[in-house]
Amino acid sequence: MFFASDNSSGVPPEILAALARANAGYVASYGADPLMEEVRTRIRSLFEAPEAAVYLVATGTAANALALASFCPPWGAVFCHAQAHIAEDECGAPEFYTGGARLVPVEGAGGRMAPAALAAALARTGTSVHGVQRGMLSLTCVTEAGTVYDPAAIGALTALARAEGLPCHLDGARFANALVATGASPAGLTWRAGIDVLSLGGTKNGLMGVEAVVIFDPARAWEFELRRKRGGHLVSKHRYLSAQMAAWLEDGLWLRLAAHANRMGARLAQGVAAVPVAGLIHPPEANMVFARLPAAARARARRAGAAFYDLPGPPADAVRLVCSWSTTEADVDAFLGLVAG
Amino acid sequence: MFFASDNSSGVPPEILAALARANAGYVASYGADPLMEEVRTRIRSLFEAPEAAVYLVATGTAANALALASFCPPWGAVFCHAQAHIAEDECGAPEFYTGGARLVPVEGAGGRMAPAALAAALARTGTSVHGVQRGMLSLTCVTEAGTVYDPAAIGALTALARAEGLPCHLDGARFANALVATGASPAGLTWRAGIDVLSLGGTKNGLMGVEAVVIFDPARAWEFELRRKRGGHLVSKHRYLSAQMAAWLEDGLWLRLAAHANRMGARLAQGVAAVPVAGLIHPPEANMVFARLPAAARARARRAGAAFYDLPGPPADAVRLVCSWSTTEADVDAFLGLVAG
Amino acid sequence: MFFASDNSSGVPPEILAALARANAGYVASYGADPLMEEVRTRIRSLFEAPEAAVYLVATGTAANALALASFCPPWGAVFCHAQAHIAEDECGAPEFYTGGARLVPVEGAGGRMAPAALAAALARTGTSVHGVQRGMLSLTCVTEAGTVYDPAAIGALTALARAEGLPCHLDGARFANALVATGASPAGLTWRAGIDVLSLGGTKNGLMGVEAVVIFDPARAWEFELRRKRGGHLVSKHRYLSAQMAAWLEDGLWLRLAAHANRMGARLAQGVAAVPVAGLIHPPEANMVFARLPAAARARARRAGAAFYDLPGPPADAVRLVCSWSTTEADVDAFLGLVAG
Amino acid sequence: MFFASDNSSGVPPEILAALARANAGYVASYGADPLMEEVRTRIRSLFEAPEAAVYLVATGTAANALALASFCPPWGAVFCHAQAHIAEDECGAPEFYTGGARLVPVEGAGGRMAPAALAAALARTGTSVHGVQRGMLSLTCVTEAGTVYDPAAIGALTALARAEGLPCHLDGARFANALVATGASPAGLTWRAGIDVLSLGGTKNGLMGVEAVVIFDPARAWEFELRRKRGGHLVSKHRYLSAQMAAWLEDGLWLRLAAHANRMGARLAQGVAAVPVAGLIHPPEANMVFARLPAAARARARRAGAAFYDLPGPPADAVRLVCSWSTTEADVDAFLGLVAG
Repeated sequence: MFFASDNSSGVPPEILAALARANAGYVASYGADPLMEEVRTRIRSLFEAPEAAVYLVATGTAANALALASFCPPWGAVFCHAQAHIAEDECGAPEFYTGGARLVPVEGAGGRMAPAALAAALARTGTSVHGVQRGMLSLTCVTEAGTVYDPAAIGALTALARAEGLPCHLDGARFANALVATGASPAGLTWRAGIDVLSLGGTKNGLMGVEAVVIFDPARAWEFELRRKRGGHLVSKHRYLSAQMAAWLEDGLWLRLAAHANRMGARLAQGVAAVPVAGLIHPPEANMVFARLPAAARARARRAGAAFYDLPGPPADAVRLVCSWSTTEADVDAFLGLVAG
Repeated sequence: MFFASDNSSGVPPEILAALARANAGYVASYGADPLMEEVRTRIRSLFEAPEAAVYLVATGTAANALALASFCPPWGAVFCHAQAHIAEDECGAPEFYTGGARLVPVEGAGGRMAPAALAAALARTGTSVHGVQRGMLSLTCVTEAGTVYDPAAIGALTALARAEGLPCHLDGARFANALVATGASPAGLTWRAGIDVLSLGGTKNGLMGVEAVVIFDPARAWEFELRRKRGGHLVSKHRYLSAQMAAWLEDGLWLRLAAHANRMGARLAQGVAAVPVAGLIHPPEANMVFARLPAAARARARRAGAAFYDLPGPPADAVRLVCSWSTTEADVDAFLGLVAG
Repeated sequence: MFFASDNSSGVPPEILAALARANAGYVASYGADPLMEEVRTRIRSLFEAPEAAVYLVATGTAANALALASFCPPWGAVFCHAQAHIAEDECGAPEFYTGGARLVPVEGAGGRMAPAALAAALARTGTSVHGVQRGMLSLTCVTEAGTVYDPAAIGALTALARAEGLPCHLDGARFANALVATGASPAGLTWRAGIDVLSLGGTKNGLMGVEAVVIFDPARAWEFELRRKRGGHLVSKHRYLSAQMAAWLEDGLWLRLAAHANRMGARLAQGVAAVPVAGLIHPPEANMVFARLPAAARARARRAGAAFYDLPGPPADAVRLVCSWSTTEADVDAFLGLVAG
Repeated sequence: MFFASDNSSGVPPEILAALARANAGYVASYGADPLMEEVRTRIRSLFEAPEAAVYLVATGTAANALALASFCPPWGAVFCHAQAHIAEDECGAPEFYTGGARLVPVEGAGGRMAPAALAAALARTGTSVHGVQRGMLSLTCVTEAGTVYDPAAIGALTALARAEGLPCHLDGARFANALVATGASPAGLTWRAGIDVLSLGGTKNGLMGVEAVVIFDPARAWEFELRRKRGGHLVSKHRYLSAQMAAWLEDGLWLRLAAHANRMGARLAQGVAAVPVAGLIHPPEANMVFARLPAAARARARRAGAAFYDLPGPPADAVRLVCSWSTTEADVDAFLGLVAG
């Protein structure tokens, strides 16, 4: 009954096996390993982007911050949702990597940026040399509220940004869950919808700590490589990142893991919605459920070993429940039983 | 016959086994895992430093740059050997993480900083508000030339720095090899010799990508944690770093791996020294051999599959040969046979 | 009828005369000039702060950004009003100088931060290593809305910040106007009210481009000096800054200039308030008037040569009118006549 | 007998008069003043560069650091002479403004970079992602040793840099003195010789603190403006900078002032060379004399009120003597009399 975060899960056996296979012999370091070639080919094919530059790093914060820094100047404003991971959970990594760009929070219900709010923020920003300039758009899908954008919703926001010449980033820490939830294709949810650079998260969906950055415009690739090295994120024994990512992408493992997590999320949401004393806060569209659980129900669940986060309201009694590839139906059902009281 | 770098080796079976064990169940993320508690306890004990702060990151560049930034202000000069990894091989990561500190190269034979050269550099630096200020000392052991400092040699240099109030860093990317080579204790080669912060490298000696930073003065610990997070180096599924480091430190595995690498280095050095057309450049004190190999010998070895780096001279015909925990006597002997012609 | 900005005015004859006097002979550079000694003594005396460190720079943005950077770490949040000059008008200079700190906007009516809003922002910030940390408070007086804080109002805000251990900055680009408006003493409006560092603006009140930074805790003085030099703000022929500041502080010239500007502001406000079609937006407490002027009135005034800024609403028809030391009653009355139609 | 620095001199009466004239009335701020238009036109004409972007700042360090940052990425190496002002006298401003670029010192006799040394430094740098990349060339003329490059010498160095695609900066803190010394035209010593951006110093040659940055490729102009603002170097009452620069450029005042300083330098050098106990270190080509003066001669001169800097050798007994626009023949002759003993 561990619903605190999807980064507290382990990795499936396919990944351990891939590491063991990759361990043999001497292999070129710093990304020149043959498995990275395989990863690159696979991602280009999955994304229908034969020119895309593909890189691996060990953390989502690194993926996001390096992606932003490669596209946004130090004097740029990065428009992001007020609850975005880059704004709330990275201790200023975007500011650090960009050399002092500013995050401009844009509101919107359910974790999704409202187009009108983005338009207003764009209009307010960069009107003279005295203020920071319009720099970049950063969206998150699955959002921090467990909702998703479909391709049209992403496209509506990127269109506003691109009309001002801004590049667009997608924080896809739970990108596989978003693909499953929307039924969109990788290309449909990214470059076809106006995204220039994607943080493609593996860690929350079954890897030990591997994230890809996919840059659809390869002109920025070399700059990204230098920033990655300079940030200490170019891993020497790179084969261990490549091996995990290659195995994850093989035969749709990434999507199967995400589909399972989403199914568990839906089961959990359905159950919570049915509990008289509880209630859903956001429509649960992927593997995260935001709900209201009265104190008594929370205490009961915790006494029985359940783990999850209380959220500062409003609303009161809010909790976040995250399912992962390793969540079981038994976990979900046991938790629902406890909550129902 | 792979002598190009110790970061092209895999990891020993103990490490794979540790990862598999650590994979079970749900574990608190971001360093709150129980295995990290074990790592901390073990390092404090090995270093006789019960107050030391201990952190793990995935790359040596991150370990070095974060260590420097936690002790050196943006206007500081970091005194380091002209061939130091931080100067030559990190694409400016120290400058990036410190916010623009300056590396001041200090010369010295055999990769070791000459005390007189350090004294001169200190005297030249920071004489007024117009220049960068004396900031920090950074030493490397094993050095980039394959030599080592013994505790007295480190103490002689740190004493000069400490007399100016400067903190002292040790880049120990090959620290285990240095311990074996000098016979010094971990404390003797670090804080007892005036070192404030150590980059303790695991990757080049049998891990997949795990380095510890050991801060002997815990007053800097929280700042380090914030810099690590902000740099994107706080790994969420931290258990996989902890597990590797814990296994590496258990029962002296780290020292056995290093001792083997050093023995292979010595065997290689002895063999090369005996080859009429070759010759050693630096005294090989750990697992790296710097030698002269004529073009014909190099070509012969490479045709047979040997891998190693040619170095820009002087001297001409210089090569670097690196042994690791996985180098075999057969590798060494086959290579020597080829070189001898 | 120039009400666009107080930085479009010239300087009074006393300042030109001081420059001419200071021009004679050879004088030590970089702040070692005797006039700077006089400035330092005078400011320490005026502020009843015998230990204060005092520095001059040429711009208000430099004063603010250097002051912030000397007290706030790169991972810190600077709490400031949403309309603060540091947030809106410095193109990210605070982010640049601090190495990436984050400005956290705090709301409040009339340009003044609401204590409850500050308390909420403090409570939300820095709860773990994952977010930026509480770093610093920055207030502005005269505010960007032309209002002032009295010492008690400043003290109420600094008390909240100091309870969290945060240093407090006052952007006093119009500090002399604030002194005149509140009747407070320099000490009363600064360190006695909990301010650690003050940007004391001269430029908007009769100098060519001279601002003082007054650091009440001299422990940060040397760091400030290094940051100033490194920022390119240590002026070599410093005597010309000193001479202006010394003359400005002599015999209360700074207060006389400010009192005149405030009187003109009051006259203008009184007149605008009496115009049926117009109306005041904020209570005009110093030299700036925020009013509503219908389009016809604005057009009429501009045709006759008046200069002032239209503001994006709400409210609609908003304008900013700024008086300075050189504004005349005739200017004000002519403008009022035009507006009245 | 003040030979310590040309920044300890005052300004000629033309400059005071220009300030007084510029003081009248209300003028648009932040560089939109009509006098700046005049400055721009004049500099474009003098440099035969009708497209050049021209900006004013208050210090030479700002001019240099902003110029470098506008052309060199954070991971770039700036190749400069080992004694360059940017390396020795700016407390790391280049590192700060560029976001951590590295200064790579290049040797050469008499303050002039040796082409072979530059070629070697270029060849050593940027060979892979692991090291900093070739970023920019920065030359200084008049050099820190009081010598000059002629256009051909500049062209020989910029040709090496441009072959690698690097932009080239000229630190012209004493550019007028260099023009007079070489007889070159402004265009000849800059863009025709391969220079992309010039720091054109006024302060050391008769202004209160005004430097122009001339960017021959206007594509970088907007970036420069943003960096200037963000660095706190966009002066609000800009007319006072413009007025000085306009007056300085009018009717060749800048060249007359420099010619006088150079003549005084030559007179001083000739005199010193004739003193048996003294001797010139570098050929004095502009307004600075580097000489050997025995301790007794130095003491004698200082007792009589002379001011100048002793330099750390070698050679021993080295001093720097700087003449300016305000140095008189009487000063020089009195000093020579004292030195001769």
